[in-house]
Amino acid sequence: MELLKKRIKQDGKCFDGGILKVDSFINHQMDPILMKSIAVEFVKRFATYPVNKIITIEASGIAPAIMLGYLLEIPVVFVKKKSPKTMENMLTTTVHSFTKDRDYTVCISNDYLTPKDNVVFIDDFLANGNAALGILDLIEKAGANLIGMGFVIEKSFQEGGQILRDKNIKVESLAQIDSLDNCTIKFKE
Amino acid sequence: MELLKKRIKQDGKCFDGGILKVDSFINHQMDPILMKSIAVEFVKRFATYPVNKIITIEASGIAPAIMLGYLLEIPVVFVKKKSPKTMENMLTTTVHSFTKDRDYTVCISNDYLTPKDNVVFIDDFLANGNAALGILDLIEKAGANLIGMGFVIEKSFQEGGQILRDKNIKVESLAQIDSLDNCTIKFKE
Repeated sequence: MELLKKRIKQDGKCFDGGILKVDSFINHQMDPILMKSIAVEFVKRFATYPVNKIITIEASGIAPAIMLGYLLEIPVVFVKKKSPKTMENMLTTTVHSFTKDRDYTVCISNDYLTPKDNVVFIDDFLANGNAALGILDLIEKAGANLIGMGFVIEKSFQEGGQILRDKNIKVESLAQIDSLDNCTIKFKE
Repeated sequence: MELLKKRIKQDGKCFDGGILKVDSFINHQMDPILMKSIAVEFVKRFATYPVNKIITIEASGIAPAIMLGYLLEIPVVFVKKKSPKTMENMLTTTVHSFTKDRDYTVCISNDYLTPKDNVVFIDDFLANGNAALGILDLIEKAGANLIGMGFVIEKSFQEGGQILRDKNIKVESLAQIDSLDNCTIKFKE
């Protein structure tokens, strides 16, 4: 997605250790017009499949997911990182965060993820793939059907994309980054 | 907002202790079409003011906020409940959660909230007002100007609305709930 790559080049910031900061337009301050364009691109990649629900995970996945849900006129469910007291029929799984070096539990209500659901998972970043694998576990526990996964940005130099594609998951990343070496953003051609 | 009240009556669930669960359409599973209608209502309430930025707090405020930002074509910033390692020029404040009976720190980058900003704060619920007061503190620390605050649902039987209105803040709540006694949803007329 050229518009997105252009914006990442223009406003993304590189830090040592393969860190790409896009917090001026994606995951802290958000550009809603770009988010809508991102959702349009996801529509193109997934709309030929019988998707009836979008799944995301709080917090940065919510904006692109709700825009996609709006365009497709289907519900969006966000997986929670803390278990609310009043959640019924809760499904949980454990996700390891490399960034924070700890495990955390994420949850979704089985009421909103069922064997009737054909879902697309949307998130802002795909890196090591741990969050995506957690979502996959929740989808399996719920007996739902995964159509595919869409990411705004994939760090192709980390293993997540390979792990998911090896499981025959349809992975659609709108900007794939090959390298952040020497703090230069290099996209995959 | 009649459409919202009707939906709350239809799909909202009451629990003992003044708890209203709207997790089938607002804050776990989300109805994106309703979210857009909610944003249209916020447009009507705030569009005559020179708003140039929407502020919200993760996670449930993000969906209505991004829809409002999209309609007004202005950026949306979500306040974070955890401090990312790479956030620059961070402003923080402490919010007390009655539900969880603990204090937590929330943060925003001063880069995205400045004296040039005329902001509207959007959130899903207004109850005791603690999150809103935290946002107010961040806005004051940043030297930004608050235009007003918009909430999808206000629990008018809790003190938050009064506290904010006593500070001469323009508070716009799309559904005001007077009472949840005996697990019956009673709206303010």
